[in-house]
Amino acid sequence: MTKQDLIKSLARSTPSRIILLVIDGLGGLPHPQTGKTELESADIPNLDALVKSGVCGLSLPVGVGITPGSAPGHTALFGYDPLTVSIGRGVLEAVGIDFPVKRGDVLARGNFCTVDKKGNITDRRAGRIPTELNASLCPLLEMTIDDVKILTAPVREHRFVIAFRGKGLSPQVTESDPQLEGMPPNPVKALSPGASKMARIANQFAEKAAAILKDKKPANMVLMRGFSQTPHLPSMKEIYQLKAAAIATYPMYRGLARLVGMDVLPAGITIEEEVAALKKNYKKHDFFFIHYKKTDAAGEDGDFDRKVKALEEIDRLIPDIMSLKPDVVVVTGDHSTPAFMKAHSWHPVPTILYSKYCRCDDVSEFSERACLKGGLGIFPATDIMPLAMANALKLNKYGA
Amino acid sequence: MTKQDLIKSLARSTPSRIILLVIDGLGGLPHPQTGKTELESADIPNLDALVKSGVCGLSLPVGVGITPGSAPGHTALFGYDPLTVSIGRGVLEAVGIDFPVKRGDVLARGNFCTVDKKGNITDRRAGRIPTELNASLCPLLEMTIDDVKILTAPVREHRFVIAFRGKGLSPQVTESDPQLEGMPPNPVKALSPGASKMARIANQFAEKAAAILKDKKPANMVLMRGFSQTPHLPSMKEIYQLKAAAIATYPMYRGLARLVGMDVLPAGITIEEEVAALKKNYKKHDFFFIHYKKTDAAGEDGDFDRKVKALEEIDRLIPDIMSLKPDVVVVTGDHSTPAFMKAHSWHPVPTILYSKYCRCDDVSEFSERACLKGGLGIFPATDIMPLAMANALKLNKYGA
Repeated sequence: MTKQDLIKSLARSTPSRIILLVIDGLGGLPHPQTGKTELESADIPNLDALVKSGVCGLSLPVGVGITPGSAPGHTALFGYDPLTVSIGRGVLEAVGIDFPVKRGDVLARGNFCTVDKKGNITDRRAGRIPTELNASLCPLLEMTIDDVKILTAPVREHRFVIAFRGKGLSPQVTESDPQLEGMPPNPVKALSPGASKMARIANQFAEKAAAILKDKKPANMVLMRGFSQTPHLPSMKEIYQLKAAAIATYPMYRGLARLVGMDVLPAGITIEEEVAALKKNYKKHDFFFIHYKKTDAAGEDGDFDRKVKALEEIDRLIPDIMSLKPDVVVVTGDHSTPAFMKAHSWHPVPTILYSKYCRCDDVSEFSERACLKGGLGIFPATDIMPLAMANALKLNKYGA
Repeated sequence: MTKQDLIKSLARSTPSRIILLVIDGLGGLPHPQTGKTELESADIPNLDALVKSGVCGLSLPVGVGITPGSAPGHTALFGYDPLTVSIGRGVLEAVGIDFPVKRGDVLARGNFCTVDKKGNITDRRAGRIPTELNASLCPLLEMTIDDVKILTAPVREHRFVIAFRGKGLSPQVTESDPQLEGMPPNPVKALSPGASKMARIANQFAEKAAAILKDKKPANMVLMRGFSQTPHLPSMKEIYQLKAAAIATYPMYRGLARLVGMDVLPAGITIEEEVAALKKNYKKHDFFFIHYKKTDAAGEDGDFDRKVKALEEIDRLIPDIMSLKPDVVVVTGDHSTPAFMKAHSWHPVPTILYSKYCRCDDVSEFSERACLKGGLGIFPATDIMPLAMANALKLNKYGA
């Protein structure tokens, strides 16, 4: 029995409410000058107070030493084994723009790119063309090849989604994007016997796209990667008996939430608007995933001070959230993004669990070092939902 | 997907370098008089300094409560699941004397023993005959039975290696050594249908050996155990994309390293010579396994003070190792060998991981008790390679 099956067999619906606040890229590393991490440098009295009345620890999104992408980072937080649930880049881009995916669609992430007269790539991103240009080019690429309908949708700058809709399509194909410049796009090849049709259609699409875009330099060619289909996941309703809602300003996170069956609430663009959405919908759901993006963006940019400020911004919203008197609050991240590394990292993520029934530890500040001494220890992120459910008294006793 | 498969799918080759220093039998127990362990009693300023700039914890070689032999202890450190990788005694004896094993060889550990006129064993070790006598007897036992070549090689005292080389041989047979005296050697029996040839050849060999050794009392018979073949392990190159080198003065550890595809470097007999070998070959490899034996030997002898001195000896070499500016250094052991127990033990092993990207903890001294408060917690030894790879920035991100 998997951990998820066990939880499913014990879950029960009750009136208690759970809030899962995901501070993207939460964990960090010490600043080389001060020796203090972003969390240790930030003035976060409300998170510190939450730690004092909660229990804390460090969560491992995928495993020791493994740096997670956003998808495995979040599926783990929602209680799905990130090593068995695989969400391809094509799917992620599509759900991230609310693209109306149908079961069986093969989705790919497209890039508009620039090629020279010989067909060699000179810019994999076509000079990051404006989104408006992208949006005007995408409709030109919609077509039907044999019985396969090809739909497209702009994402941002040079990025777009390609959906292949038809019978007998498989995502088991190689990418056309060589991830290098100075060479032509690769032909798409089947990786399994059942994928030859997909490979053929993708190559014909690339050929036709080249003809259509011939005079559209810098966006005179397309690259494809991350061919994938939506995974068939049991919903959070099925597993946890929860009426779950997602509040996220970035489409990708709304898309991930939709894949696990959450209702996606209108959330605006600021964290204040997100908290307002929480308040407005608080009676209608019993689980809320709130996503805060700025910490990760600052970390990725290597901007230590901006990450500190983002932490202080989210800290100021904590009293507002707590004023709703939720039964369980979890504050964590989908992975660490140390400004020092300018990238996602493998380091475990500081986590607070607050409830009336959590067993408090002695930790009195929210930081990587302090959480190491917390009552949750270093633990897999897939334990967060079982812990939240238990603390919400939403799990029956196991065994007689 | 196993942890090893996951790491393999993410590994990439980069110029960074990893040093894995294995202090054999590193962990200990408090001295009954002082209440301090060997590490706590030793003057080890350089290891203490390394702890201060690194992150530490306690590694579990096989599992809670499990006392590992040298083979599982090391395979775990190299990132192989010690519960699925099985290295038989015959193989271990053979690789331990640099015996030129060929793929398909079935290897057995041989004992010269003494039998009486009725053929009953009176001494399982033939009075621990001198190694020189063993070496003169071994060649007498080399023979060919049917198409099977039988090779032998002396180990030490009464111990020798038997290699059966031919087609259709299987190690799935029982042992002839009854592990008791006063009874005759057992016939070797097939444990699977494919092993009948091996059983027949082994029994014929025993019969011929008895005839050959008839007048060689006390070494007038042989016992066989630990029939085994070299496991087909993926190499460290295949898994980690590493060009791995082993520096070890004892043959068994060189043999274990060879089984996972490491280049075995000439290492001399002292730790100073080992460090010299490291320096000499530093540019040619990107992973170095350095093995230090004296700590374990002193622990096995129950010599607390000698183990303390051995720890101080290895400590003095740390600055020399660090002067190479390796990207990642791991200091750990393959198991604990408390002098108090005069044996390997199940206790978790103090471990330091140093890199620019390790998330430092508050620990400032290298000992069992101090490591308990470290940022790595208590963790499986098979996590050491994933951690080292991550800290060397040799792992790609997992998932989109």
